This record gives sequence, structure tokens and C-alpha cells, in this order.
Amino acid sequence: VSVTSIFLKTERGSVSSLGEAALIRSLRRWLGAASRPAPAGIGDDCAVIDPARGRELITVDSVIHGIHFDGGTPPRAAGAKLLKRNVSDIAAMGGRPRAAVLALALDARTSLAWLAEFYRGLAREARRYAFPIVGGDVAQLPGSFVATLTLVGEAPGRVLTRSGARAGDAIYVTGALGRSLPTGHHHAFRPRLAEGAWLAGRRDVHAMMDVSDGLAKDLASLTPRGLAPAIYGALIPRRDGANLREALCDGEDYELMLAAAPGTLETVWRRTFPRTRLTRIGAFVRRGKAPADAVNLGDHHGYEHLG
Amino acid sequence: VSVTSIFLKTERGSVSSLGEAALIRSLRRWLGAASRPAPAGIGDDCAVIDPARGRELITVDSVIHGIHFDGGTPPRAAGAKLLKRNVSDIAAMGGRPRAAVLALALDARTSLAWLAEFYRGLAREARRYAFPIVGGDVAQLPGSFVATLTLVGEAPGRVLTRSGARAGDAIYVTGALGRSLPTGHHHAFRPRLAEGAWLAGRRDVHAMMDVSDGLAKDLASLTPRGLAPAIYGALIPRRDGANLREALCDGEDYELMLAAAPGTLETVWRRTFPRTRLTRIGAFVRRGKAPADAVNLGDHHGYEHLG
Repeated sequence: VSVTSIFLKTERGSVSSLGEAALIRSLRRWLGAASRPAPAGIGDDCAVIDPARGRELITVDSVIHGIHFDGGTPPRAAGAKLLKRNVSDIAAMGGRPRAAVLALALDARTSLAWLAEFYRGLAREARRYAFPIVGGDVAQLPGSFVATLTLVGEAPGRVLTRSGARAGDAIYVTGALGRSLPTGHHHAFRPRLAEGAWLAGRRDVHAMMDVSDGLAKDLASLTPRGLAPAIYGALIPRRDGANLREALCDGEDYELMLAAAPGTLETVWRRTFPRTRLTRIGAFVRRGKAPADAVNLGDHHGYEHLG
Repeated sequence: VSVTSIFLKTERGSVSSLGEAALIRSLRRWLGAASRPAPAGIGDDCAVIDPARGRELITVDSVIHGIHFDGGTPPRAAGAKLLKRNVSDIAAMGGRPRAAVLALALDARTSLAWLAEFYRGLAREARRYAFPIVGGDVAQLPGSFVATLTLVGEAPGRVLTRSGARAGDAIYVTGALGRSLPTGHHHAFRPRLAEGAWLAGRRDVHAMMDVSDGLAKDLASLTPRGLAPAIYGALIPRRDGANLREALCDGEDYELMLAAAPGTLETVWRRTFPRTRLTRIGAFVRRGKAPADAVNLGDHHGYEHLG
């Protein structure tokens, strides 16, 4: 069944036809096995969960109708995308997800059929990554739809941050970059959770982040003061025939980017993750020492969230 | 300085005039001591914090322009309200807050002066309740403003939930109820954090929650199957001359409501919290056994989030 209309013209079949209490019962039913009884799940003032083992990780992300998805996006894909964007942030620090809460701000005329599919998309991915949706909030937002998911995780071992890259470190990316929107990668991607945890366990990996706003923009966040990235257009793995600009600037790649000491990483990676590409695209050099044939990142811009 | 306009007609002085990177630097500056350097604060893929002692608590709540506040609400009060609503949920389980993340969905024409005040209101309350804002997200929402705060907390001892009330338990509320909007209580309130933690430590207290949607609606959530609340209009503490309907239905009281075995609670409370009222408003009885002069809660309705 294709469900495309998010906002209905009449109350029939809309969120307001159900009322708040019945809506919350429906949300729990749509979540199914991704939900839990209160107080471990939805239904009390807070959700109560076990504490993190190791360090605790927290991340939050939103999807907004007309910005992050539109009428052409299946609602299951929109729900899945929201959840996976957050999982990708946990992956980027080498952690694993534990529990999420979801705040909805929606129009009273939001279609229940659409919302059910959005929740089923969320629930399927929550089951896949083995964590529950434990709480939420529903509020009225005339004319719009905003879903905000906060994900808590844990890093039992080392936490890998964006800072720590050193001069001479190689720069790697997983998978391929560019053309995320036309290929559907922006909602079909799989966050690099196992890869992130494995990379955090290797001492030769010094810094890591996920590529979500485009390599050109995100690489600046991985670059320590005094260093510069020297990357090469010919080395950058491209999705579906993307040109260099698309690979650098499109965003929504949800791949891992990391800085690591030259050595055995690639060899061991190929044995461990034979189906996932890891590509060396360049290295960090002293500032001002980038070779003339390296990509000039100043010519490229990533995704701006406030356009 | 009075800052009232949230949305500007021109780019000058608006969020979009600053751009994303400069906006995030401003948000951190406005948070001041309520912010921390990454990865313990804003700036990496996740925030990294110490794990909870005892059980972990999670709650999420949003404020939306035109719904939870309007042009008449000082932006500092709107920011403070968002944070305190979440603290009240932690208080209602006997916990203490640890860290928050904040997702903003806002129009590109949102006034920077307004937003700075909103953040200063958040920051002041975060300092008061001694926890940092460790992360966030900013996204574009044409024509609206939604701020969603997720608060994680901990309960080193017992977690007090909504279930557990017994036949014969007295029903208590802190403070007074009703007329929260006209009195400004809806943004000036102080969450009952110390009181909640103290109550969770008492074995004679069996169940607790915060009153946010009106006593008439919220009391149903504290009532176990097979029991009914017998409360009396003359006993209900009222704010600022509220009538019974206002005390039962207005909502936004952010007081604690609890079920406790009859005994020493009131006496010890008065010694411990001499400046906070604790009022016995009735008791839980077997279903169908409520006296004829008890309030018929079926005649009253609380706040509906999907009007």
C-alpha cells in the first residue's frame, strides 16, 4: 500500500480524530517489539534504563517535512532515516546504541496511515540495531511535522573523537561518496556501527567522525590546528558516477572518515570487513605544505543547515 | 531591554545572517558556563559523559511558538520553562538531572536577539540545577519555532514510579493548583527536585508523578486498576483564588502528586520543607466505593495536547 499524503484535508483518518490517549496507544502498537512497558518504556514521567557500561554517549537529530524528506519519500524511509542518522553518530565514536526517545511536533491533520508507516520504519531499524524507543512527547505544530530523536549509547572501551589526528596520518573513508539523494542512499544507508566499534579498538586510528554534511565541510572538523588535509580527487571513492564536486559536497553520505597512522590498517580491514570499502584518500600534512595537486577544499562547500 | 519579536521581516539580525558555524559559536557563548568543551559538550558526533549512578532516567519535552509560549512570553522565560518542564519529570521519579541536549527547528528569520535571550534563560536554569547542555542540533523550519530538550538523569536510590498506589493510601499534592497561565506560574515555577528525591527515599510513599496536564487528567495515571481516587474539592490547594475547575483542569502546575500510607509523612515533611505546602486531598478507595461528596473526576478534563 502506498501512503503518500502526510497532511489530510479532513479530520477523518487524522491524528486529531484519535485524541491524545488513543494516539499514544497507537504509537506503542506501531512500535511493537521496539517498545517496552513503563517505567522501562513509554508511560511514566521518565523512562528508567540501566546505566551505560563505560562512557555514555548522547546525540540528537531531527527530520522535518519539506527539508529532510518530502511527499516523494515513503514514510517508512523517513522514520528509518531519522533513527539511522543518530546511529551513525554513535558509530562515529565507536559506541553502541542503548535507547532512544522521540519527540513529535505535528499538525492535527497529520494522516494516521502516514504516521503508522513512519513509526514502523523507526521500529524496524530499532529492532535491527537492538535498542528500544523508551519515551517521547507529542505536541501540536500547525502546518508542519518535526520528529526529533535523542539516542543514548555507550562506549565500553575507547571513545574515538574528532580530535587527535597527527601530521603524517593517512585519511580514510568507508564506502563511497556523493549522489546520496538521487540514489536513495540518504534513506537506504546502513550506519557503520560494527566498523566504528572495531576502528575505536585500534590504537593506530587517532580520530574519526561521520561524513554527513559532505567531505569538504566535515574534513575541516577532523583537521587539527597547524595541519591541513592533502586529499586527491582521483582517490575519492564515488557513488554511482558522482563527479568530484558531488563526492565532496552533496552530503548525507553517513560514511566514516578517520585519521590513522600509516601501517597495517588496510590489510587487517580487508580481512575483517571484506564487503566494505576502506579507501585512503590522502594524508594530514603541516599547514601550507599541501602539494599543488591536492584538492583545494576552499573551492568546495558542504551542506548548510540554514540556507 | 525588551525583546519581543521572534520572527524578523529582514535577514538583518536573523539566524540566517550569521550562518551555521557562527550560529553554533553563538549558542555556545550564550550558554556560557552551562556549556562544556567537546567531547563532553557541543562539537563532536556525540557528547561523552560519565555513566549514571544507579538507574538512568530519560525524558524529553518540547516548546513550540504559538502553543507553549507566544509573543507575550519573555524569551528567557520560554527557555527556562522548557528546561524546568524536563527537570520536573526527573523530580517526579526522585532523580537528579545530569545532562541535556537541545534540538532547535527554526525559521531562518528567527531573531538572534530573541534566541540569545531564550538560551540565556536555558543557561541560567541549567546552572541552577547544576547540569550542562552537552549537545544539540539546528535545523530549518519555515514559519515556526520548536525547541526540544532531552534530559538524562540518575536515581542513585529508589525510583518512584506512577504505579504502586494501594487502597487506603492518602493522596497528596505539593504547592497549589490552577491559574498557572494568568499568574505566570507556568514559566516561573520551581521544579520540586529536592522534595522528589526526599519522597523517593520514604518507604511509605508508594507512587508519584508530576501534575502537568491538570489534576483531573493526571490523577487517572496514578490510579491502579480496581481502585478509585476519592478527593474533596474543599481540600484542594488553589493558586491565586482559582476555582475548583481551574484547580483540576488548568494544567501546567508542575507540582508533585503522590500516594502514601497514612502515618508520619506530613509531620516529617513540615520539619524538612517548612516553606513548601504538602496537602492531603483525599485517598484511594476500592472502585465504586468513593463517597458521594467526593469530586466526580468524570466531570472534569485536563489539557489535551492535540486540540
